Amino acid sequence: MQRIFLDDAGGAPILPEVAAALRDLPAGNASSPHSEGRAARAALDRARDLTAEALGAGRTEITFTASGTEAVNLALFGAARRLPRSGTILTWAAEHQAVLGAVRRLQAEGHRVEIAPVDHAARAHPDAIGPSTALASIGLANNEVGTLQPVRELIDRAHKLGALVHVDACAGPRWIPIPHGADLVSFSGHKLGSGRGGALYVKDGVRIDPLLYGGPQEWGRRAGHEDVASAVAFAASITVCARERQVRASTAHRLSTALRSLLAGLGGELTGAVERLPNFASCAFEDRKGEDMLLALDIAGIAASSGSACASGSLDPSHVLLAMGLSLDAALGSLRLTTGYATTDDEIARARDIISSILTRSPARA
Amino acid sequence: MQRIFLDDAGGAPILPEVAAALRDLPAGNASSPHSEGRAARAALDRARDLTAEALGAGRTEITFTASGTEAVNLALFGAARRLPRSGTILTWAAEHQAVLGAVRRLQAEGHRVEIAPVDHAARAHPDAIGPSTALASIGLANNEVGTLQPVRELIDRAHKLGALVHVDACAGPRWIPIPHGADLVSFSGHKLGSGRGGALYVKDGVRIDPLLYGGPQEWGRRAGHEDVASAVAFAASITVCARERQVRASTAHRLSTALRSLLAGLGGELTGAVERLPNFASCAFEDRKGEDMLLALDIAGIAASSGSACASGSLDPSHVLLAMGLSLDAALGSLRLTTGYATTDDEIARARDIISSILTRSPARA
Repeated sequence: MQRIFLDDAGGAPILPEVAAALRDLPAGNASSPHSEGRAARAALDRARDLTAEALGAGRTEITFTASGTEAVNLALFGAARRLPRSGTILTWAAEHQAVLGAVRRLQAEGHRVEIAPVDHAARAHPDAIGPSTALASIGLANNEVGTLQPVRELIDRAHKLGALVHVDACAGPRWIPIPHGADLVSFSGHKLGSGRGGALYVKDGVRIDPLLYGGPQEWGRRAGHEDVASAVAFAASITVCARERQVRASTAHRLSTALRSLLAGLGGELTGAVERLPNFASCAFEDRKGEDMLLALDIAGIAASSGSACASGSLDPSHVLLAMGLSLDAALGSLRLTTGYATTDDEIARARDIISSILTRSPARA
Repeated sequence: MQRIFLDDAGGAPILPEVAAALRDLPAGNASSPHSEGRAARAALDRARDLTAEALGAGRTEITFTASGTEAVNLALFGAARRLPRSGTILTWAAEHQAVLGAVRRLQAEGHRVEIAPVDHAARAHPDAIGPSTALASIGLANNEVGTLQPVRELIDRAHKLGALVHVDACAGPRWIPIPHGADLVSFSGHKLGSGRGGALYVKDGVRIDPLLYGGPQEWGRRAGHEDVASAVAFAASITVCARERQVRASTAHRLSTALRSLLAGLGGELTGAVERLPNFASCAFEDRKGEDMLLALDIAGIAASSGSACASGSLDPSHVLLAMGLSLDAALGSLRLTTGYATTDDEIARARDIISSILTRSPARA
């Protein structure tokens, strides 16, 4: 029996378009001046042009990175280290730990940092942006419960008050467009179906410090050997996203609605806002342990998640669910099912049977 | 006619062992708890074990990075930011620009930095290490002229005086072993034949700060999605190096000797020490321009280099050659021919004919 992959948010399967783009790629060093190097440079340039086109950006606004985490860190450290120490760096408590980790480090370096609370659906409120805010970092959508953030309003308010805005678009861009106007936007390749890599959009005129020093690669924003294959994979996946997200979202909405109604019927408390990523079905069970559910589902052929993959392996409850005000028991009993571009109606029908059987018969905790 | 690749130091062709290791690799997120994730985790663990074995290290001492530049930056920023500001960070003027770029940034952040001179062969002298030295960074070999550095002596002196030692082993480990005892050793995948990736060895007990914050990946030293393919490629290439470097060095020595005698016969001033990487033939011509030679060789089917690929594209003279005391004209007339694991006697014979013909007939500058 074919396995059913319902952990798209934890890592999207590599797109066929990415595999095709990686075939027969030149393997030279794109910084070398000979023919082998120039062939690699041409592939890299084309990847940058495609990425810029998919994002409605200019080519000099695109910097390729090794991961979404690197893009987020480059945005936050890069912008913050050029700001006066008196300016506050603002983010929200349900942001990804790459954002929270970076701002906590900035705090340790002497920057003013504010981590604003979120509501019960993990929603950030633009009012947290005040006159002292110098840089605000907000996710396009929450990566654990799928809640869409009021990015448009946040950008408008921040810019009115003179603050820079970083949008962490690691979660979501394969399903929804990114509001225009952000100063910095970070992307994760493995969440887009490219398997690896990442990118940072830096708006023309916005200056950031590098994290990596050395050669003049990536417009001086990121030194080091250019991973052409990674850039080409990223470009292929973001191009597919831009072209297909609307129609893909419509299918995903149908599939995840079926999953959510099943989970609610089995006693799960649905998590996240109504305005959510269309492929998300997440919930919490007060009387079940997430890891037990994941194990049982895995054995039965379903790949699922209990929060962010980056936090998995740890037994700590999700900081997102706690920030939303869930009880510790509920936070430890979370389940996240996320469909992907390739998920079919038949898979969802089979998954519903399996999930229903497991969560009905398995003894609840305690 | 098959092209002749004589720019191994600028980027080694991908090894067949690497291509084989990358076939049928699991594509999951190694931080995910389901079967797909665990398969990726197993591949990553095996890559780490192989790398540790090749380096005679423990698995917790290995951190995978995206590039050699990242490994160098992680070593230097990671160690220096934990040091008291009164300790001097020492390196030498002919080191790679990743090292020089990182220490200049550390200087801008308020650290004491010393960049010691090198001799006419780009050799560093251990005497530069003094009682105030807290961290010394030395290359295993110079990446532009191949000069071997007195790494053993440097480590011994630094440790006697209580300083940490970072060995930048991006250039050289496919030809020569790395002296034991360094606290930090950085590696570049694309210079080893893995096409991408890098790694940092951190000696057990040595603590470094991360550059990237977020998830707990790579023993907390580097947050972000684990690029399993990159780690597997790196492991395959460093394994081949450890197994084959001795016999490969012997062949390379024969081939590069033939190239060096040709270059000297054509009026080039050989650069670098007698104790050099066995695959290096580098020289400088007072009356020729490096870019003209590269272009002519490229058209004739030879990929060569005129210094570090990272600096190519710029018209600036190599900082290495200037640090060695070469005149500006000589520095602008440099040529670097480096053989690789796959270079054959027949290729060198053909290359000698082509080089001889080009450098004999082409008009020298001015």
